[in-house]
Amino acid sequence: MICSIKEEKPIVGITMGDPAGVGPEIIAKALSTEMVCETTKPIVIGNAAIFERTIANLGLELKVNAVQDPKEAKFNPGIIDVFEATQISADSIQPGVIQRLGGQAAFDCISKSIELALAKKIDAVATAPIQKEAIKAAGVQFVGHTEMYEKLTAAEYALTVFTVRNLRVFFLTRHLSLRDACDQVKEAKVFEFLVQLHKELGKLGMKNPKIAVAALNPHGGDGGLFGNEDRQEVLPAIEKAREIGMDVLGPVPADSVFHLGLQGKYDAILSLYHDQGHIATKTLDFERTISITLGLPFIRTSVDHGTAFDIAGKGIASSVSMEEAIILAARYNIMQKNNM
Amino acid sequence: MICSIKEEKPIVGITMGDPAGVGPEIIAKALSTEMVCETTKPIVIGNAAIFERTIANLGLELKVNAVQDPKEAKFNPGIIDVFEATQISADSIQPGVIQRLGGQAAFDCISKSIELALAKKIDAVATAPIQKEAIKAAGVQFVGHTEMYEKLTAAEYALTVFTVRNLRVFFLTRHLSLRDACDQVKEAKVFEFLVQLHKELGKLGMKNPKIAVAALNPHGGDGGLFGNEDRQEVLPAIEKAREIGMDVLGPVPADSVFHLGLQGKYDAILSLYHDQGHIATKTLDFERTISITLGLPFIRTSVDHGTAFDIAGKGIASSVSMEEAIILAARYNIMQKNNM
Repeated sequence: MICSIKEEKPIVGITMGDPAGVGPEIIAKALSTEMVCETTKPIVIGNAAIFERTIANLGLELKVNAVQDPKEAKFNPGIIDVFEATQISADSIQPGVIQRLGGQAAFDCISKSIELALAKKIDAVATAPIQKEAIKAAGVQFVGHTEMYEKLTAAEYALTVFTVRNLRVFFLTRHLSLRDACDQVKEAKVFEFLVQLHKELGKLGMKNPKIAVAALNPHGGDGGLFGNEDRQEVLPAIEKAREIGMDVLGPVPADSVFHLGLQGKYDAILSLYHDQGHIATKTLDFERTISITLGLPFIRTSVDHGTAFDIAGKGIASSVSMEEAIILAARYNIMQKNNM
Repeated sequence: MICSIKEEKPIVGITMGDPAGVGPEIIAKALSTEMVCETTKPIVIGNAAIFERTIANLGLELKVNAVQDPKEAKFNPGIIDVFEATQISADSIQPGVIQRLGGQAAFDCISKSIELALAKKIDAVATAPIQKEAIKAAGVQFVGHTEMYEKLTAAEYALTVFTVRNLRVFFLTRHLSLRDACDQVKEAKVFEFLVQLHKELGKLGMKNPKIAVAALNPHGGDGGLFGNEDRQEVLPAIEKAREIGMDVLGPVPADSVFHLGLQGKYDAILSLYHDQGHIATKTLDFERTISITLGLPFIRTSVDHGTAFDIAGKGIASSVSMEEAIILAARYNIMQKNNM
């Protein structure tokens, strides 16, 4: 494996996640792959001692280079550059256990990744999973990962997009009951979301992106026979978006829209509730469904699995999602840069 | 292409569907494929003149053998056996147009397929698409295809299952608004459905089928944080089913359950609303998602696309779904027979 250093490769900061989870091991594995080395200059935002232990446990041929500044990183084959973002001893973290220290360390890494990205010392961020109970135990007030990045960067909004194969799937709503999600399907909200979505795709270089909106009800409500939201809320929002020149179509029945998207018909699909877009992407390819946060001052990608405490430290967790997340952070960073 | 005749191959009656739609052409194409001939003894339930015209239009090397009884069928390579189920002249049907005669012919074929199947003259039925406006114009009182088979066979119930790859996906509800579908997620209804589902899988030879129930809300409601239906309605129904010895699990978050199903973990998945199961199956493989109706006195399969009036008569419609539907009708008939 050769990590050839090219100047144009983006520096991707990779947050360690909860050190008691699978984060450190999937990062170490990912950084041993050719594809990650070829496309990025990766730097772990974590703790060198934790990575020393992880590498020893996995029996990987890697060395750790602890740095205090990304400038000190070597980006060399066989070396993991670790930015020291949190002061914990490896012994204090027990794999597979919810603990305050794990939550604190995870949050320290996130904070540091934001600091480094805002200071332009790293180009983009890929995040390993955190554990919400541990985060809570550490006294952190934010509920989720995305919220932390949104609030701590003072972003106007954060848009999550799932990518898998050639699909980009956005979500009007996410962590709500299905009934509440139905209530949220309102013309003004859909329109506002479409405007944000259009803007973020524009930042990636898509000047007139084609956006399909999934229907809420089966068959798009079949003319009002199965629900009125599609014609009374979704369609007017789409028409309003078209009036200001956006290339939006729909509502497209949800059992067709992802199939059509796979045929390359759209740049993005707006799903109206969590499972609508999640079922499509994760049924297609669970491990290669990657979450990207747009709207921040930098690109942030994330694996969409959890800390997997049940298998943490055993070396059996697959690093495919982590690899994809790192590579996509670099790719989307380049898309944004090329468009500046 | 050789259609070798083996006695054990089931006789599959294939209803023509609306003759103004793509039905006749996809049937003719399907019956020209080796796979269909190798696995079934196909007999079209339709109209010989329509098929003469279709074959001439497509330029296929096929001959039509009009029969008044399935006993007269030749099941020979290069010959389409057509049971005369409806008295229309080919000239009276204009491709791509909604017309009373088309609806009447489609319904005649359905009625005849039921008559033949109940008389054991055919083993199973595969249906080509019908057009609901044409059906209505013909004065038929039934709303949909499945309802016709359910009512006209006096079945206690009809269960639709979608199959694609190794998934079998059932639906607690289908043609309802998403809100109404939420209202229908009730313990008694879920339990009753599980009992029917278990019974129908049993008829197919699965003595202790493993059934996963998809959750209604994201993450299965996350302990009540995003909706209570999963713990208050779905879980008690599953527990009740387990108490009577059924192997049911869930509610499994909907963004995982189909992925796990693809790994072979379940014999069937119960989805709670139309799009939940439709998105999963049709995103995976639109054309190979086949609908099977269980609970009838015989197996009925169906393509899950429409009459496609916009391309009818042009010879460009894909016959993949029709082929799959015919082959699956034979396969499921054999599963039932082996279990008698």
